[in-house]
Amino acid sequence: MPDRVYLDWNATTPLRPEARAAMVEAWEILGNPSSVHAEGRQARKLVEDARAAVAVAIGALPQNVIFTSGGTEANALALTPGLRRASGHPVQRLVVSAIEHASVLTGGRFPAGAITSLGVTRSGLVDLDRLRSMLEDGPPALVSVMLANNETGAVQPVNEAAGIVHAAGGLLHVDAIQAFGKIPCDINVMNADLVTLSAHKIGGPKGVGALVLAEGVLGFEPLLRGGGQERGHRAGTENVAGIAGFGAAARAAMAALDKDAMRLETLRNRLERGLAQTPGAIVFSAEAPRLPNTTLFTVPGLNAETAIIGFDLTCVAVSSGSACSSGKVQPSHVLEAMGYGPELAKGAVRLSLGWSTSEADIDLAIKAWRKLAGTLLTGERRNTA
Amino acid sequence: MPDRVYLDWNATTPLRPEARAAMVEAWEILGNPSSVHAEGRQARKLVEDARAAVAVAIGALPQNVIFTSGGTEANALALTPGLRRASGHPVQRLVVSAIEHASVLTGGRFPAGAITSLGVTRSGLVDLDRLRSMLEDGPPALVSVMLANNETGAVQPVNEAAGIVHAAGGLLHVDAIQAFGKIPCDINVMNADLVTLSAHKIGGPKGVGALVLAEGVLGFEPLLRGGGQERGHRAGTENVAGIAGFGAAARAAMAALDKDAMRLETLRNRLERGLAQTPGAIVFSAEAPRLPNTTLFTVPGLNAETAIIGFDLTCVAVSSGSACSSGKVQPSHVLEAMGYGPELAKGAVRLSLGWSTSEADIDLAIKAWRKLAGTLLTGERRNTA
Repeated sequence: MPDRVYLDWNATTPLRPEARAAMVEAWEILGNPSSVHAEGRQARKLVEDARAAVAVAIGALPQNVIFTSGGTEANALALTPGLRRASGHPVQRLVVSAIEHASVLTGGRFPAGAITSLGVTRSGLVDLDRLRSMLEDGPPALVSVMLANNETGAVQPVNEAAGIVHAAGGLLHVDAIQAFGKIPCDINVMNADLVTLSAHKIGGPKGVGALVLAEGVLGFEPLLRGGGQERGHRAGTENVAGIAGFGAAARAAMAALDKDAMRLETLRNRLERGLAQTPGAIVFSAEAPRLPNTTLFTVPGLNAETAIIGFDLTCVAVSSGSACSSGKVQPSHVLEAMGYGPELAKGAVRLSLGWSTSEADIDLAIKAWRKLAGTLLTGERRNTA
Repeated sequence: MPDRVYLDWNATTPLRPEARAAMVEAWEILGNPSSVHAEGRQARKLVEDARAAVAVAIGALPQNVIFTSGGTEANALALTPGLRRASGHPVQRLVVSAIEHASVLTGGRFPAGAITSLGVTRSGLVDLDRLRSMLEDGPPALVSVMLANNETGAVQPVNEAAGIVHAAGGLLHVDAIQAFGKIPCDINVMNADLVTLSAHKIGGPKGVGALVLAEGVLGFEPLLRGGGQERGHRAGTENVAGIAGFGAAARAAMAALDKDAMRLETLRNRLERGLAQTPGAIVFSAEAPRLPNTTLFTVPGLNAETAIIGFDLTCVAVSSGSACSSGKVQPSHVLEAMGYGPELAKGAVRLSLGWSTSEADIDLAIKAWRKLAGTLLTGERRNTA
């Protein structure tokens, strides 16, 4: 596809060359990691090397990294009644921020009646005062707050949330999928008890993720049972090549993090200056700390679906926020939680950048938008006239 | 590794060139299958092409193929209380054959009290008379019988089992992982309601599998929730490359099935003639219909763990039956169910062959065994003297 500009990195990123190389190498290994012969031991080594790489990247111990088939499975695995610290009581309820990914909003293994939603401010940050009051009474809670929102890019105050949660005897789960590889992410700095990661958001393969536990978290219950893989935490033959690709991607992402972040922020700001020239343009969460690569914007009267198709026809790939489910065309639950009405929420378009995004890409995107805005916004005005 | 002979194909098979090519091609696609732009639509097309290939291979409709992260997840997904046919009642209990894979024996989402075990004959075939009497009374049951056992290779009478199960108002789940690609496997011929498949047993990648539903099965409940992928049956960004590899492997396996099966059976018989020269050698399930590629054998006094290490040191990779869980050294539950005592059951060694296995490989394995038998069996006699 010539001259395509891919600005949907938050949906999925291109595969890093390092991940590709690791997977091709892994394909040469014949064995099953659970087999005791030489081929099996080689496969086992690939898995354990990758585990060490992911552990280093998130600041955890390797034995606390559980590989899964992706972020959705890791979130389902994380949200488990009965989790506890040695000194504490098992969690009996779940508090999820209203802007979490759909796989967290479903609540994992908590019954629907034990799940409550934590609101966010107009700028898209979790309301810590509200969290404090929600935890004041009632049984110990598992609280799930993402590190960065996938639609707005708003970076949440997870460390402050951890303080509040722990003071109330609860545990904190952080879905760090969208932040990992874009901003520093350390389980100890966040003070989180469980962290979810996904390979394909950092240039690893699709279909691989991890749940990372802090040291001392007890009461873990597997979701998949059978074989003794992942120290009994997750049965099933390991996705050896995929895991090796995840490890390689984590190493590469960590090495490039500072450099990429600065460069992406500069490009993102250039993009937003271009978008701001359209009268009435709104960049969501602009006043909050944000990921360096993400812009969620709209203009009153814009229809996101039409805009995405328009961008696509002019060879720019963008999205309407989350790509987590096909066929769903509905206003963003994130913007609704931030207090925006469905009219604005259904018009939000997300542009997300990555390591290969160039200044030329940004300028093409701005040019495409100007042309689209001229057509679409006029059209909308006609339709509502 | 020069001159290694890999005879552990039932644990995992080498990647087929067709699967490799499909995955490399898939890596070039940037998109998330849930994204609406051109990159997303390309990724979606890869997934749907693979779904069609797997559907053809198992004789099902594409919309009834649910991709998972492997056989363990597919089994966990299959074993669900409440499944039913339009004309029938929801299943309330689970009957599993005693020789199932660990991921089936755990019973999926059935409570432990609702699970009963179906015994097998001395030759390793499920006891159909016993099944009939188990289903005579009590609520409708989901019955799980594998098509071929992973340790002995014994091919189970699943079609007969289906007749008994359906007559009693129940549903039949068939774990066809080990049989798929080795013998003909058709959901309609088996008359199964749910079928489990795994990619890495047919030359696809590790970390991909499928649960296949017969037309008209109702009451399905997802295990992973969030996004609307897999028609709402399994949330999470699709393992696009892995799924593409599975599809390509399924096509290649189907094309090679008859030719491979005949060749493998000839080689396997050659192997067994060689093993039979050791006095007292037992080939398990020899009198039952078996996969063409599998030999599970022992000699009284043999310790499987020592034998596997011995084979490995002489450059032959074999196993002690299932490789489903690392670190577990215990007698085979399959042989125990067949009525063999722990002494024989802990001595069983499995040799399994595949498309690249040659006559020279077999002869090397026989040679290795003769040398080992001389050493180990003498050693055992000394130890027990």
